[in-house]
Amino acid sequence: MDVEKKVLEMLKPKREEYELIENVYKKIAEKIEEKASSSGIQVEVTLQGSIAHDTWLSGDRDLDIFVLFPLTMTLEELRAKGFNILLEAAKEIGRYELRFAEHPYVRVFLNGVEADLVPAFKVPDPGKIVSAVDRTPFHTEYINKTLTPEDKDQVRLLKKFMKTIGVYGAELKTKGFSGYAVELLVAKYKSFRKILEEASNWEIPIFINTLENVDWEVFKKKLRRKYPDSVIYMPDPVDPLRNVTANVSLKTLSTFILGARCYLNSPSIDFFNAKPQPISIDEVVKHSTNRCLVVLKYTLSDPPPPDVLWGELQRVETNVVNLLNNRDFEIMDSSTWTNEKDVAYIILEASLCSIPEYKLYIGPRVTVRERSESFISKHSQNEYGPWIGKDGRLRSLRKRRTYSIVDALRELASEYNSPPHLKPITPSVSRLHLEIAEEIVEKGGYAWLVEFVLKKPSWMAKCTG
Amino acid sequence: MDVEKKVLEMLKPKREEYELIENVYKKIAEKIEEKASSSGIQVEVTLQGSIAHDTWLSGDRDLDIFVLFPLTMTLEELRAKGFNILLEAAKEIGRYELRFAEHPYVRVFLNGVEADLVPAFKVPDPGKIVSAVDRTPFHTEYINKTLTPEDKDQVRLLKKFMKTIGVYGAELKTKGFSGYAVELLVAKYKSFRKILEEASNWEIPIFINTLENVDWEVFKKKLRRKYPDSVIYMPDPVDPLRNVTANVSLKTLSTFILGARCYLNSPSIDFFNAKPQPISIDEVVKHSTNRCLVVLKYTLSDPPPPDVLWGELQRVETNVVNLLNNRDFEIMDSSTWTNEKDVAYIILEASLCSIPEYKLYIGPRVTVRERSESFISKHSQNEYGPWIGKDGRLRSLRKRRTYSIVDALRELASEYNSPPHLKPITPSVSRLHLEIAEEIVEKGGYAWLVEFVLKKPSWMAKCTG
Repeated sequence: MDVEKKVLEMLKPKREEYELIENVYKKIAEKIEEKASSSGIQVEVTLQGSIAHDTWLSGDRDLDIFVLFPLTMTLEELRAKGFNILLEAAKEIGRYELRFAEHPYVRVFLNGVEADLVPAFKVPDPGKIVSAVDRTPFHTEYINKTLTPEDKDQVRLLKKFMKTIGVYGAELKTKGFSGYAVELLVAKYKSFRKILEEASNWEIPIFINTLENVDWEVFKKKLRRKYPDSVIYMPDPVDPLRNVTANVSLKTLSTFILGARCYLNSPSIDFFNAKPQPISIDEVVKHSTNRCLVVLKYTLSDPPPPDVLWGELQRVETNVVNLLNNRDFEIMDSSTWTNEKDVAYIILEASLCSIPEYKLYIGPRVTVRERSESFISKHSQNEYGPWIGKDGRLRSLRKRRTYSIVDALRELASEYNSPPHLKPITPSVSRLHLEIAEEIVEKGGYAWLVEFVLKKPSWMAKCTG
Repeated sequence: MDVEKKVLEMLKPKREEYELIENVYKKIAEKIEEKASSSGIQVEVTLQGSIAHDTWLSGDRDLDIFVLFPLTMTLEELRAKGFNILLEAAKEIGRYELRFAEHPYVRVFLNGVEADLVPAFKVPDPGKIVSAVDRTPFHTEYINKTLTPEDKDQVRLLKKFMKTIGVYGAELKTKGFSGYAVELLVAKYKSFRKILEEASNWEIPIFINTLENVDWEVFKKKLRRKYPDSVIYMPDPVDPLRNVTANVSLKTLSTFILGARCYLNSPSIDFFNAKPQPISIDEVVKHSTNRCLVVLKYTLSDPPPPDVLWGELQRVETNVVNLLNNRDFEIMDSSTWTNEKDVAYIILEASLCSIPEYKLYIGPRVTVRERSESFISKHSQNEYGPWIGKDGRLRSLRKRRTYSIVDALRELASEYNSPPHLKPITPSVSRLHLEIAEEIVEKGGYAWLVEFVLKKPSWMAKCTG
């Protein structure tokens, strides 16, 4: 328990941080209101997300400012006039960027704080939402009415724990738990400890009832039908048929379960401190000697929004692994990373970069007449055989077209490289070497590369005595 | 049919050959009778085997001379006094060698003929035999009373066919059909063609009834109990519970079945003409580039009798293949050869001579609590991992102790090299290269080596249109 107390002292935002945030928010809100009123449109500027919930971590200074427009506007009007109000405001506030998720929005930077200005509709209840962002104010309302200040500290602990073991964040980059999912877990189980205790016994798929007054068995079936591929189901109390944890992957959930067990086994500050292993890039590259680590690099000129980009990269990664497995390469691990700006990498580890030049085909026993005849005629032009093995089966050795993994990846690019934004880009393929490793580091992928090469999460060492 | 007629003309011994054999036999028989009578022991000198059966092939000039001693002698007396009479005779006949199978005997060489002088007991019926050689005269009697001269030509065809495809010879070297087994097949099915037609439909195990007046279903069960590992059962009419084909291996039987099918598909003189493929040893070695062919060489100083030696070598071969498979080497083919004098070789083909330096271990899903904990503690000291894969399973990479096949074969010698006569000899291990290939050729293993490297029996090309 001591660990958690100590950690919490670090995690809770300081008085000055609250004040800074408050000031920034006020300035932005005023500017938006000014722009709105001069456009003659009535808006409500609201604070949402972890700051509004008071579940944010010290150091995280990301404001979610939702500007609620009247439902009398059309979605087109919102995206044109409404968005323009935010843009005009942003121009007068400071540095800004246009962003696009399901919805276009504006990001502004002020006094070291990053604020997203999101246009949304003010709807009377969650059943009336036009787009997902309209649901957010109801989450804020639900959390603030449900969680006590003590609960919110438990949220902070769980968030930080999840960040450290790499399972926090619902984007495709992480396929993990959203902040709201963490808050709902605390609403359900009350304490960080209790959640870990529960998680350490989870069986997959797991169903967590966040609702009152439902026939849970019936409801589970409905959720399952709507989200057949989910590994964890947690309905949104604000919109019950929505699974808040729909995006959590099997790997992420498994990591959380194991992480929970490890922590309970020996609670330590290491679980709240994502320090990358201190290792030089030379040493990382040295670790790749006598292993087969291969990097595909995509140079991006006009990348799509992050979730689209990550989704396409992950699809390519899956394609690549399947194609290589079919070609007899044993792919032991793979991962994807992008800085979401100008470059993306897929890294693979195979057991061999060159597989045997000849492939062994084992046919039927000669007593299986038709199949053995067809084996012989099919393999009669092979380099070696057919011959009969000691087990009475026909065998043959055929030369492979490609036995180098780098060649195979170059040859098969048109097959795996199918997603729309990546299709026009020819990935460059090479084994991991110092130059490309340095480039990855320079682009911001140090932690990702080190984790892939070393495969030693520091917290996992704590799992067993 | 034309093919068989033509072949038969070549196979039938010429008049001069019969005369030569006759003369040699007479000379030897006289000498033995002279030595016996001067020792005061009454013997009967008899001709046995394929020459006595008139089923021998032109060019094969091997006499089996069985000297039958009275049952009043003990086995010790036979092996001392009886053997000595043959030895004394041999000394006066010409060049000779002492031989030892189940039984000691003498081999003499005269006028280009090789004659084995075998001491045996004259027993009243096959139920009274003291050692296996005593059974032989009853085989001769049975064959000569059963086979017509036409049948005997069919035996010649089948023998030559079997020699060509490598399935003739009951010794462990071949694990094939004995001459007597061939004769029994002809006694049963009458013609070469008919036997191939039968064989081409054989299912394994196969039972061939050579007996009259037995309840065959009951008898099959008895045979099976006595020879649980046989793949073909053919009782000896002279000693029904003896399986004449007990030594036939699955590989040999499969080869015969396929060979039969191939021949019937397109009868050709190639099936009676075991010409090795005309290929230079340089080219053979060239074929081993980019493949992993490894040779174990035993230098023999005092080799045991051939069947003992072959048996031990085959045991080592099996051991080696199993051990290497357990060490993750994929062994695609293996074979053994010895000149039975001063050298023996085991050759292996693996898909790789160097397997990956790191081995991937795939553990349980993290939800399987106890097994995942034990996986983590077992693998926590490994070079890489444990980590969690996309499938939610734990994984780990451990460095292998040995990843070169040559190193593994050197390290494991004490494990596989267990049979008594080979145990004291350290095999030398190397990849196939020109020098060792030339040595194998010089020792008489050309055909064996070529077959192993090229894996293309010339007759198998005929199996399909």
